[in-house]
Amino acid sequence: MERFEDLTERTVRSQQMYDGCLLDVRRDEVQLPNGKTSVREYIQKCGAVCVVPLFENGDVLMERQYRYPMGEVYTEIPAGKMDPDETDPEAAARRELREETGAEAGELIFLGRFCPCCAYSTEMIYMYLARDLRFGEQKLDEDEFLNTFRLPMSDLLRQIADDLIPDGKTQAAVLRAAQYLNAAKK
Amino acid sequence: MERFEDLTERTVRSQQMYDGCLLDVRRDEVQLPNGKTSVREYIQKCGAVCVVPLFENGDVLMERQYRYPMGEVYTEIPAGKMDPDETDPEAAARRELREETGAEAGELIFLGRFCPCCAYSTEMIYMYLARDLRFGEQKLDEDEFLNTFRLPMSDLLRQIADDLIPDGKTQAAVLRAAQYLNAAKK
Repeated sequence: MERFEDLTERTVRSQQMYDGCLLDVRRDEVQLPNGKTSVREYIQKCGAVCVVPLFENGDVLMERQYRYPMGEVYTEIPAGKMDPDETDPEAAARRELREETGAEAGELIFLGRFCPCCAYSTEMIYMYLARDLRFGEQKLDEDEFLNTFRLPMSDLLRQIADDLIPDGKTQAAVLRAAQYLNAAKK
Repeated sequence: MERFEDLTERTVRSQQMYDGCLLDVRRDEVQLPNGKTSVREYIQKCGAVCVVPLFENGDVLMERQYRYPMGEVYTEIPAGKMDPDETDPEAAARRELREETGAEAGELIFLGRFCPCCAYSTEMIYMYLARDLRFGEQKLDEDEFLNTFRLPMSDLLRQIADDLIPDGKTQAAVLRAAQYLNAAKK
């Protein structure tokens, strides 16, 4: 196989194929590293955030939410899209945590970025660990239904190992939080 | 806030909005837990697989690939879609590993499922750890360009902690593999 050092694909033409309420679908003609052309189809998405809210006793504040594309209730950490006028993911993380669970975080630690599907979406999720939690009132969107509950971090890690938490951002953020907490202990 | 025990959203109507070369976009009218209706827009996707190929000395076989939606080269583990006639994700994992890297795995260990974006795609990725690697020839798709290289697992875990590996499936599968290997040691 020929090995190309510059893997960049250059945009030849870009077209919007569908403009929905949630999904903005693009189809671009691109020039490949070997000079030939191909098509890349993807979803144009704004940024998003997710938060591992950790209580002092080691419990994590989790959510159960029906995920229509998957046809089942998923166990997840709090998460949501950044508002179009929001530029600071940390502020978005604080807002989403407050709206979905009523919690205010005294401390918010950045865990890294999480790109859910680099092959067909521009979405980037900023992951946080939240500590020093205080509680106010939950304020969900009109068409958002979710139940919150507490789960010990050790149980959550076991559930991930046992394939009981299929949600990708929850797996990555919780495993990253555990990695962070282990490193902080040393 | 009212708490609904049954969070299920029921399909009222389903419509295909766009049928592209890669993306099949649906828009469904759904009945919410409170009886009102709303719209759910999502991508209909087949299954996919990803593999952490681990050498005996602790190196992981990685790839560099240009990800057009993100506009940059990503460092990832081998991964790909299941073929439409493929029903066994393990067979798909062996095929993708062989095609993308030339490696045959003597041992393949299932690490769990990874749902990249449960809010707007039906995609499910099956994660595997591959060991006992033997090498043949790489056979990439015609419009696929990627370079492979070896990276020690310890460096990979540090790069994930340092936010240098934004790809979600790579983070989750590598952290899951480390969790599995740690548990196996005990």
